[in-house]
Amino acid sequence: MSKIAVITGYGPGLGSALKKRFEQEDYHVVPVSRSSAVTADLTDSASAHNAFEQINEQYGCPDIVIHNVAELIRGEFLSLSDSDFEQAWRSTVLSAVNVCQAVLPEMLNRQTGTIILTGATASTRGGARFAPFSSAKFALRGLAQSLAREFQKQGIHIVHPVLDGIIWSELSQQRFPGLKQKSCLEPEDIADIYYHLHTQKSSAWTHELDIRPRSENF
Amino acid sequence: MSKIAVITGYGPGLGSALKKRFEQEDYHVVPVSRSSAVTADLTDSASAHNAFEQINEQYGCPDIVIHNVAELIRGEFLSLSDSDFEQAWRSTVLSAVNVCQAVLPEMLNRQTGTIILTGATASTRGGARFAPFSSAKFALRGLAQSLAREFQKQGIHIVHPVLDGIIWSELSQQRFPGLKQKSCLEPEDIADIYYHLHTQKSSAWTHELDIRPRSENF
Amino acid sequence: MSKIAVITGYGPGLGSALKKRFEQEDYHVVPVSRSSAVTADLTDSASAHNAFEQINEQYGCPDIVIHNVAELIRGEFLSLSDSDFEQAWRSTVLSAVNVCQAVLPEMLNRQTGTIILTGATASTRGGARFAPFSSAKFALRGLAQSLAREFQKQGIHIVHPVLDGIIWSELSQQRFPGLKQKSCLEPEDIADIYYHLHTQKSSAWTHELDIRPRSENF
Amino acid sequence: MSKIAVITGYGPGLGSALKKRFEQEDYHVVPVSRSSAVTADLTDSASAHNAFEQINEQYGCPDIVIHNVAELIRGEFLSLSDSDFEQAWRSTVLSAVNVCQAVLPEMLNRQTGTIILTGATASTRGGARFAPFSSAKFALRGLAQSLAREFQKQGIHIVHPVLDGIIWSELSQQRFPGLKQKSCLEPEDIADIYYHLHTQKSSAWTHELDIRPRSENF
Repeated sequence: MSKIAVITGYGPGLGSALKKRFEQEDYHVVPVSRSSAVTADLTDSASAHNAFEQINEQYGCPDIVIHNVAELIRGEFLSLSDSDFEQAWRSTVLSAVNVCQAVLPEMLNRQTGTIILTGATASTRGGARFAPFSSAKFALRGLAQSLAREFQKQGIHIVHPVLDGIIWSELSQQRFPGLKQKSCLEPEDIADIYYHLHTQKSSAWTHELDIRPRSENF
Repeated sequence: MSKIAVITGYGPGLGSALKKRFEQEDYHVVPVSRSSAVTADLTDSASAHNAFEQINEQYGCPDIVIHNVAELIRGEFLSLSDSDFEQAWRSTVLSAVNVCQAVLPEMLNRQTGTIILTGATASTRGGARFAPFSSAKFALRGLAQSLAREFQKQGIHIVHPVLDGIIWSELSQQRFPGLKQKSCLEPEDIADIYYHLHTQKSSAWTHELDIRPRSENF
Repeated sequence: MSKIAVITGYGPGLGSALKKRFEQEDYHVVPVSRSSAVTADLTDSASAHNAFEQINEQYGCPDIVIHNVAELIRGEFLSLSDSDFEQAWRSTVLSAVNVCQAVLPEMLNRQTGTIILTGATASTRGGARFAPFSSAKFALRGLAQSLAREFQKQGIHIVHPVLDGIIWSELSQQRFPGLKQKSCLEPEDIADIYYHLHTQKSSAWTHELDIRPRSENF
Repeated sequence: MSKIAVITGYGPGLGSALKKRFEQEDYHVVPVSRSSAVTADLTDSASAHNAFEQINEQYGCPDIVIHNVAELIRGEFLSLSDSDFEQAWRSTVLSAVNVCQAVLPEMLNRQTGTIILTGATASTRGGARFAPFSSAKFALRGLAQSLAREFQKQGIHIVHPVLDGIIWSELSQQRFPGLKQKSCLEPEDIADIYYHLHTQKSSAWTHELDIRPRSENF
């Protein structure tokens, strides 16, 4: 029976690079998004649970879940509304809570599993005009630490990679005209690191690491 | 005309110590809570704005706002519900967003003002079984950094004290039976530090500091 | 009998502002440098011990020691020599070790005392071409944490302020032509904060805080 | 021509696990210590340069240097001498400076190369009675950051792994009687991570990561 990798917030760019990388290793990869074979609104607890029940029935318990869902909401603080903050929190934090609550019981039964919650520059530095995104990404980091400290000893590997740079993708090229590929994070190279993190033995687990292009200032 | 200090999430303990300390310095202190003279549900944007309009009309623009609102929601991760996370976020983060949005326009007009957003041990360390509280407190820290970087140059002093210990109060004595006063943070001593932070000149502003009893492990 | 404050690495700028500030509070202030009334080469253990024996005999045990000694040694890594690194370490770290070893026994006898070890931007961020200075300032921070964790419970308050900016002084004006006063840390304003840190009650001690001009990027 | 990996501070435990791991990948591994084929006192600049000249002549420019030299010097602060601090600094920091100065010119010529400077729990937390070790390990971290920011853009990958646990080895079993293997970092598992770090593409480089056994509190 093949191993199962679930990618939430699946899309072109990092999502599809992760899918290829894990398929190379003979994983069955299950994308979860609003438009995948397994669809879910992960900000809704019931929808998240349904999606993971469906995955469990069809494929078995995931060996790894990679959670990349986030929404880059930012702007001058006084131009933002409550709902900007709420949307940032729901998409980034609540979705992660729901995914982890849906997948952890089965992983704990098996006493093994990896959960990667993807962070960003804004996870450790609250920049000007990034209040909704930064506060949500900080919250995700706090969640990741709390989960690691609660579940690591029970065999669950929780990782919080901090992607400190722009991922090269169609989306980023549209958003940042003039963006140069060589100053970007290549999705394939991130995917390689994520796969490696999953293979770490439990005597030597990484909880947090930064990942950035060599040209990035930090 | 006397200076104005607003304390949100006012209650016995830190709130009343802050009131006394600022009154010693001839501040008019305005507590804001669900049961103060100025009442507000700070998790509601309109209610927060109304409260600060009322304060502006009655007393003038606050020189300092001290935001102490938070709710200690914690527990085993799999025993928690979505609404636990949402409530932690609303009480800790959304209330701060609302307060800052309500008070900043007038402070920016005057190009001066202090906002203190109170943090906790859980603001920098996500402990096991503290996921809702820690993720909310991390988020508040990200918000505080973002506000400091956006508004500091316009004369607004944003401070994020990290209270690393238990405040000695009726509430804490009920919650932690056997608690010893000498291992706790004294509200009066915190109040003294908060007042001093407000008096810092803009050539030498502190954004973050830890505050703990000498007996606290860290 | 008046209280005693010792300032090591005394000079114009921060040193003399600290002297004035503590004298306002009726402290007897004892500068220690290569050219003060009490002279010492603080990188030499015996010389440091002699200086503090002299202080103890003449004035009594210091209530507070403020250690500002550091040497800004930097440059392209491959242009630096071993002795650049050694000098940075001796002036910044070894001097602090010697001062703390000379003053702690008497402070521990009295179960009270404050030691402030001054940090800088380079204490938490190792910048390009700052290797000797940054590695020394990081080391000082590690030392300060270790001392706080060993001696705090015995009544000694160890503080590590991180000065994130340039201090306005004759020296800095010579070093950075065109420097503007309003973008600098004012020595008097830092001195005020240092005095306040010394007055913190032991129920609410700060170990680390950042201090920067409102115009400073961070 | 085979690739070259240099391991400084080579010994049983992590050193020999790294040797095996890189040899599996067809690297020629050159241990450097006081008793290896290539001997050096790395705290001495000339000796370090001689060792790397010898390596360059015999094998070619190293593709990777892994620096594991450190000396665990600790104790009650007031029981330590100046020379304890100096020895900790020389063995941990000065040796790294010397190794980097010896190997960087040739790596920069080739615009490629990896340098791993091994950190420890004490690199980010200055514990009680760990002053010499912590201040030295903090200094190494500052050095690593400074080197990364100076040389990353020129193609040199500088990594600072933080080993947060005890490595299972003959030495650790002697030092900590009753030590259990399953609560330790396995040298082979660390070696695997180090090899992977070296294979990271320059679009996605990690500068810092923590590595700990699943049973470790943090």
